[in-house]
Amino acid sequence: MPIALHVAASIPLFKDFDEATLAKVAGLMSSRSYLSHDIVMRKGEIADSLGFLLNGKLQVVDLSEEGREIGIHFILPGAYFGELSVIDGQPRSASVISVKLSEVAFLPSNHARDLIFHHPLIAKRLMTHFAQIVRAASNQRTLLSIPNAFQRVFAQLQTFVRESKDGQVIEGLPKQHEIAIMVNTSRETVSRAIHTLMKMNVLEKKGTILIVKRPEKLKQVATVGMDEGENNKT
Amino acid sequence: MPIALHVAASIPLFKDFDEATLAKVAGLMSSRSYLSHDIVMRKGEIADSLGFLLNGKLQVVDLSEEGREIGIHFILPGAYFGELSVIDGQPRSASVISVKLSEVAFLPSNHARDLIFHHPLIAKRLMTHFAQIVRAASNQRTLLSIPNAFQRVFAQLQTFVRESKDGQVIEGLPKQHEIAIMVNTSRETVSRAIHTLMKMNVLEKKGTILIVKRPEKLKQVATVGMDEGENNKT
Repeated sequence: MPIALHVAASIPLFKDFDEATLAKVAGLMSSRSYLSHDIVMRKGEIADSLGFLLNGKLQVVDLSEEGREIGIHFILPGAYFGELSVIDGQPRSASVISVKLSEVAFLPSNHARDLIFHHPLIAKRLMTHFAQIVRAASNQRTLLSIPNAFQRVFAQLQTFVRESKDGQVIEGLPKQHEIAIMVNTSRETVSRAIHTLMKMNVLEKKGTILIVKRPEKLKQVATVGMDEGENNKT
Repeated sequence: MPIALHVAASIPLFKDFDEATLAKVAGLMSSRSYLSHDIVMRKGEIADSLGFLLNGKLQVVDLSEEGREIGIHFILPGAYFGELSVIDGQPRSASVISVKLSEVAFLPSNHARDLIFHHPLIAKRLMTHFAQIVRAASNQRTLLSIPNAFQRVFAQLQTFVRESKDGQVIEGLPKQHEIAIMVNTSRETVSRAIHTLMKMNVLEKKGTILIVKRPEKLKQVATVGMDEGENNKT
């Protein structure tokens, strides 16, 4: 099913496009619906298109060597995905599955490449996005070099902190075993580290959100670790 | 000192540029020499230029939270560097130092951005480069999720393997403590893992190069681990 002009206009990557370009792009795209657990893109396949999530929710998943599923991140409405293979022509680096009823628009690879390399606006947006990913990967490498596992958990938690109207919060905290993989420790250590911060009144659980009650303290334990005596289990 | 047309022409990022564009770019660039240990770019500074190493050798370095130096990677002649800040306008993510007498050419940020976003050839090259970095970061995350430390070392070694005229080899192996940081284990574990592979005749040291004598075996221990009994210390 081709997509309507106003739908294309709602995609952030196309923001500020003139109407003629937008109409042309919309005419090249097609959309499809996916039920929960459907596979939208499959790791190892050759890229035939760039995807855009119109509504619903997707997850990028990869399998570890032992076949365990590693949930990399979620794709939310408005986002594009599958750009790596469109750009470099290599097979898909991960699979994408739908986690609920979702509608996805696709732009064929050859047209996507035209758009990506020939439109300065798009080139800039994609490269800025890549720059953020590369910076995050670099920060993660620095974080992983912290020898103390508790401090690695604290530093990882610090990266999740966002400003909200209620002050600093952590929303959508990944599962403990996911954090454990990110910072290379056991789930038990993640659990103990978070519990320690709650005991110290640095974090407070409020429904699905963690309130950072003492932002300065979290920053301190993330950057220089915990004082002797604050927690003698580290 | 401005740079000569033939010097600009030798920079891989500018390959296949027409002479007029190349002459214009060369006229906008300037070059500088650095002695060993000089700082070429400083973490946290605002980007004023995109760098190109003409000759010599540079190293991208970052500091861990405790002030330990983390050598990220080397920059070899022909390569560009400092592109993240030029693209996203954020401060430099790491410092760059010269490790021997080096000559660097700089293109001011505003001209570099013009080039990056408005030349499809350059946009494509930069994005392909970013795609490789993002894929490598994603593979590294998968690697780090391997629970067994020995196997993580094997998987990391596997990523260093290159084809050469002598078959599969590992050239420029990072130091053991650097590999230890990459795969989040101790230097001693890295040492034991490499030693085990040598005992099994999978690897053989030849000067500064490691010859992969049994590529299939390395692949096997990297992907499914070592059989019980092959090494009872794991």
